[in-house]
Amino acid sequence: MSDSDGELEVVTVLAAPDPDSIVSRPVAVLEIDLGGVVGDRHYGLQRPSDSRQARYYPRGTSIRNRRQVSLVSVEELEFVRAALDLPDLRPDELGANVLVRGLEDLSALPIGARLLFDNGLGLVCEGVNQPCRLPVEALKARHPDRSLSGFVKYAFGRRGIVASVERPARLQSGDHVRVFLPELHATLAEGR
Amino acid sequence: MSDSDGELEVVTVLAAPDPDSIVSRPVAVLEIDLGGVVGDRHYGLQRPSDSRQARYYPRGTSIRNRRQVSLVSVEELEFVRAALDLPDLRPDELGANVLVRGLEDLSALPIGARLLFDNGLGLVCEGVNQPCRLPVEALKARHPDRSLSGFVKYAFGRRGIVASVERPARLQSGDHVRVFLPELHATLAEGR
Repeated sequence: MSDSDGELEVVTVLAAPDPDSIVSRPVAVLEIDLGGVVGDRHYGLQRPSDSRQARYYPRGTSIRNRRQVSLVSVEELEFVRAALDLPDLRPDELGANVLVRGLEDLSALPIGARLLFDNGLGLVCEGVNQPCRLPVEALKARHPDRSLSGFVKYAFGRRGIVASVERPARLQSGDHVRVFLPELHATLAEGR
Repeated sequence: MSDSDGELEVVTVLAAPDPDSIVSRPVAVLEIDLGGVVGDRHYGLQRPSDSRQARYYPRGTSIRNRRQVSLVSVEELEFVRAALDLPDLRPDELGANVLVRGLEDLSALPIGARLLFDNGLGLVCEGVNQPCRLPVEALKARHPDRSLSGFVKYAFGRRGIVASVERPARLQSGDHVRVFLPELHATLAEGR
């Protein structure tokens, strides 16, 4: 099928097994079930709400886990790298699970956009990843001489997306991804 | 908290216990957990994909259940009722779980909008309910002399929304609901 709204390629897949560190590590394959990436710190059907949901729920409320998988793009990493004048910027330092290539503006995908992978995996975009300062610590260790104070500013809206699992499957580098925008809302916006 | 993007009132709550009929029935209380409305035909963490997902998955594929709860509004029911020249149009005939009042355009809520109820229940809008012809059969039984051929046309974009459960709780009529639009995408759309 080539009737999608865009196509991506999976460059690297990564998991973050340490619950106390955002840093992820490249792996050969991600096992993804309805709870997310098996063995990853973000795995689970539910999770405690954090500061991002402070407007909606008391902190620590058990809510459905909608940030099961995080994705970043080669294109947006390059933008942030150049803005910070770094020699490189790696997806593991941002705690990403999936590095993709092929879309100029991954972070602009709307909530509800579907990412359908070669092998059957189906993810649903749950929104942009809100940049926090945690990656700055990981970056400082490798770039002690650079100012990283602009990270949150430059990464805002270019930090990739978080996604939930609609259809479980394995995921590995080299897979292709078809992107589908939510259909009926687009139709309604045009038609009314 | 009154910092929401809109407020609603729950008029009636309903459950559809018969897996072979879309018709729901008013109940005193809905028990809602992470699988949806306990005892309802749409209950479950997963469900087989249907014709609405034919573009994305082979029919019958086990996918995450994103249509756990369906909501319709007094305002949109009234629009469809008037367009069809019916004496009344009931939420149970449309298989709805929740009838709300207070928003002109419930069906226009974007995917990702949150509905937060008095007692802690949190739902996430998963999109508009795509009208099908099933309610026509229920309506025909009560209105044998009326033409109902316009149902799908008039109900298109006014059929209410489907939602998934973010935070489980009980739900009953009289509850108030605060509506929150997805925040960061709105910010991004303005700022870039």
